[in-house]
Amino acid sequence: MRLRKNPKAKEALNNFKELVITSGFDKYKSHWNEVFENKNLPLFVELGTGKGKFISELAKKYKDKANFIGIEAQTEVILQAAKKATLIQSSNLKLLEFNINDIVDLFSANEVDRFYINFCDPWPKKRHSKRRLTHRNFLEKYKMILKPKGEIFLKTDNEKLFEFSLNEFASFNTTFHNITFDLHKSDYKENILTEYEMKFSSQGMKIYRAEFQFN
Amino acid sequence: MRLRKNPKAKEALNNFKELVITSGFDKYKSHWNEVFENKNLPLFVELGTGKGKFISELAKKYKDKANFIGIEAQTEVILQAAKKATLIQSSNLKLLEFNINDIVDLFSANEVDRFYINFCDPWPKKRHSKRRLTHRNFLEKYKMILKPKGEIFLKTDNEKLFEFSLNEFASFNTTFHNITFDLHKSDYKENILTEYEMKFSSQGMKIYRAEFQFN
Repeated sequence: MRLRKNPKAKEALNNFKELVITSGFDKYKSHWNEVFENKNLPLFVELGTGKGKFISELAKKYKDKANFIGIEAQTEVILQAAKKATLIQSSNLKLLEFNINDIVDLFSANEVDRFYINFCDPWPKKRHSKRRLTHRNFLEKYKMILKPKGEIFLKTDNEKLFEFSLNEFASFNTTFHNITFDLHKSDYKENILTEYEMKFSSQGMKIYRAEFQFN
Repeated sequence: MRLRKNPKAKEALNNFKELVITSGFDKYKSHWNEVFENKNLPLFVELGTGKGKFISELAKKYKDKANFIGIEAQTEVILQAAKKATLIQSSNLKLLEFNINDIVDLFSANEVDRFYINFCDPWPKKRHSKRRLTHRNFLEKYKMILKPKGEIFLKTDNEKLFEFSLNEFASFNTTFHNITFDLHKSDYKENILTEYEMKFSSQGMKIYRAEFQFN
């Protein structure tokens, strides 16, 4: 997600110091759960949090079930997410201003229980395929930091990205679960909508979803 | 596939005794490869052969690579397939008039290397889902007679059937390969069209395809 440049965003982000982490990531690696009140819960991470509706609602819904981290690279975007997350005041949620390319610098092996990838940029041109968050180069990184049997939950409105992702995961010895080509007409009841999903599904666009588990 | 009843079909089938097997299946079980000239080749089986274009062309193309069996329950339909297959005169092909429900009576464990399922009836009503050839009850049977690492190649124009099938295979600890949501625009070059596929893809319908391998 991209938003117009806002020179005051960086400064405004300072108002959310409890919630948003923008630097010093080294010292958290291997110790993420210690930043949460209940450090014994599983750690669920959203890759590309956007404006934060999904991760905020999820953190609230599963307050005593898991700790949540939302990762977003652009300052303007994470500022929006911070405003939204502040409203729910959930101590099991942190937002990180961070680039997913460097995800292995953020977490150590076995530190993450689940990743969420929601409506990531499909990068439709073939020569840009390595930028897709489900490219095997990324999957390799996720696998390094996921627990054994760790999961990745994917949602997208882009059929080509979904098809690409299924093949990338298939090449990685993963088990598939709950594949749907039309989420909002499926039996899956746990869905929390993202901002993007609200907008586009109301226009009749189909949402694809699947869960993957590394073997 | 259904064709209009033809009271003379049974009799007409007698003209293809070398090619079509309609009874005495017991004695072939565990010995299928012996009915072929080259009995050392892998055995590939099409479930629901229809009018036979696919299996005939495949048998011809891989004459020295595999033996092929096409299974079809309806006499009128297999008669059409027999006429087509006769034209290619391929000693590596047999057609069986047989009901797939009883497939485990036809082959013994480890006897089959690969199944093809092409445009099987999608049985769209939920209460009929057990009749779909990719229902887990069928997969269980296929697994019993496939070699270890045996494969199933699926093609369909029905999106719902494809989605259903992915989930059924996923629940069975299978590995997925070469998933495509639009076969005729994909990179897959080996495709042989069925009669049905020729008709509907020329009308712009998308063809879904995937390969599954039991672990």
